[in-house]
Amino acid sequence: MSPRASLISENQLIRKISQISSQSSSQSDRLQLSIGDDAAAFRSRKGVLTLISTDALLEGIHFDLKYFSPEDLGWKALAVNLSDIAAMGGESLYFTTSIALPREKSAPFVQKLYRGMLQLANKAQITLIGGDTCASPGGVFLNVTIIGEVRPSEIVRRRGAQAGDLVFVTGELGGSAIGLELLRSHPELARASRRLTERHLRPVPRCHIGRFLAARQYASAMIDISDGLSTDLHHLCEQSQVGALIDAAKLPLSKVSQKATSLLSKALLDYGMNGGEDYELLFTASPKIKDKVPKKIQGVSIQEIGQITEEAGFCRVSLHGRVRRLFPSGFDHFAAL
Amino acid sequence: MSPRASLISENQLIRKISQISSQSSSQSDRLQLSIGDDAAAFRSRKGVLTLISTDALLEGIHFDLKYFSPEDLGWKALAVNLSDIAAMGGESLYFTTSIALPREKSAPFVQKLYRGMLQLANKAQITLIGGDTCASPGGVFLNVTIIGEVRPSEIVRRRGAQAGDLVFVTGELGGSAIGLELLRSHPELARASRRLTERHLRPVPRCHIGRFLAARQYASAMIDISDGLSTDLHHLCEQSQVGALIDAAKLPLSKVSQKATSLLSKALLDYGMNGGEDYELLFTASPKIKDKVPKKIQGVSIQEIGQITEEAGFCRVSLHGRVRRLFPSGFDHFAAL
Repeated sequence: MSPRASLISENQLIRKISQISSQSSSQSDRLQLSIGDDAAAFRSRKGVLTLISTDALLEGIHFDLKYFSPEDLGWKALAVNLSDIAAMGGESLYFTTSIALPREKSAPFVQKLYRGMLQLANKAQITLIGGDTCASPGGVFLNVTIIGEVRPSEIVRRRGAQAGDLVFVTGELGGSAIGLELLRSHPELARASRRLTERHLRPVPRCHIGRFLAARQYASAMIDISDGLSTDLHHLCEQSQVGALIDAAKLPLSKVSQKATSLLSKALLDYGMNGGEDYELLFTASPKIKDKVPKKIQGVSIQEIGQITEEAGFCRVSLHGRVRRLFPSGFDHFAAL
Repeated sequence: MSPRASLISENQLIRKISQISSQSSSQSDRLQLSIGDDAAAFRSRKGVLTLISTDALLEGIHFDLKYFSPEDLGWKALAVNLSDIAAMGGESLYFTTSIALPREKSAPFVQKLYRGMLQLANKAQITLIGGDTCASPGGVFLNVTIIGEVRPSEIVRRRGAQAGDLVFVTGELGGSAIGLELLRSHPELARASRRLTERHLRPVPRCHIGRFLAARQYASAMIDISDGLSTDLHHLCEQSQVGALIDAAKLPLSKVSQKATSLLSKALLDYGMNGGEDYELLFTASPKIKDKVPKKIQGVSIQEIGQITEEAGFCRVSLHGRVRRLFPSGFDHFAAL
């Protein structure tokens, strides 16, 4: 929004982005002011809540430009934010960006980054309404703030799970962490098969499923899996003051070729249980509506994986007939340094 | 919002911040969800527009921790965003933060940073509703997104100035750039007199004046001075498709001691005309309401400095009886690298 720092040809760039972006808008009647003033302005629908979330991606912490194309990076920065709104049961509407770039990064880099971002924005029918661009003395820094909305009766929080509720997860688990390991340790294989790395480079947020569950009030609590199942399950349980028992045999593990599997340092279950950045939805629902929850929505599976228990914050997993304590062992970007 | 990266003791920190923050809230009845879920949620007032703006501060580009205390930094990151909402004539309500920190920065650094930020948040009666914290491989990165509101009839844009309108500016100009130069080149003097550097380290956004002008519909166009008068005047003129003639003798230059003045590399007028980060408001108003615009609001002067002319984007300045072309020569954080 503020032009406090100007990128070479930033004005032209902003104009271009603004044009592409406004074409993708399905909200233009409510959007009063977009890019180009000190702030953007929009009108909320009567009776709804405005949702807001913000997430940053840093080069060297969240991504490496050795294997992230600028388009992938733009896509992912938006995807992780869309996922947050999906996890609330909300509908995403607008987003703003803050981008800091080393001087050697050229205007084409930024254009490609926005191309990837706007590709997802078009799919999700949301509009870029503002941003800030400046130089970075270090690596690339990318922050997205996303704005969505939800009816008060449909909002789904992390808090709300009750003992006896069933635990569900969408899609597949572990694919992102597997992709990341292959990109880091077996770049030739990773380059040869985009399918192995797509989950890490271009995660698909479960916007539609989040809305489906919220509109029907099926989910008693929900969170998106960004840190890994074991960690995000703890977040949900702590907020809901419950525990959980997960059946490891039911986890929808990411399918990986035998060749790739043989190269991995850990068992597939480990990636599924602790691998971060899958951006699937983890939710709970009363056993009464078990049969109402579809097995699949738009090709994405919804799998029951366990049950909520009484002891607050106490999570367990049953594996090969034995029940063990489950600890949060997911992603930690501080540890990754 | 997302706990994708966890700072050591981040949970406790967030709880602490959340407590301090909620005490400062005057909007708690409208704020349905704050820190601790995947997104924050609030209810908009009927008939108003929601405003949103985002601005980043990077170590090595926007600040140097040699002279910025963590408290100063927190204050300033919020101040520059409050200034954007003020420039729209809006009222700020909520904000979110994204903070990336090198590992060697300790928890006390973050607490001090939030202390400075929440000091200003309390004054401005706005509430921290979410954020993201992670490690940085380089320096400190701080992004703030601010949410405000304004009645559609009261919104003030950069577009709207008409030929014949008078040009006004609040407060004083140049003080921030002077403070920065002293901090960089004469640190002993700067340390000895906080008054000289306060404008750079802790700018005071003109929230009250922005609202005053908007509520009475006095301002035809408005922008905050972040890049410097010469540059931001061009932004306003380009958006309004007008030009301007500024009387240099009327500029409210920052008052500086003779000793400090003698150490500066440029004339005071240069800092006033091109120095960035003053966060004063630059606005235009019809000559018909000239007498209605107060000379001072809550101790901050409002000075008429020129007039809007017809030629789009063509700005001039009269100085010692001669009229010269005025070019945008303000701050450029890319050039500063």
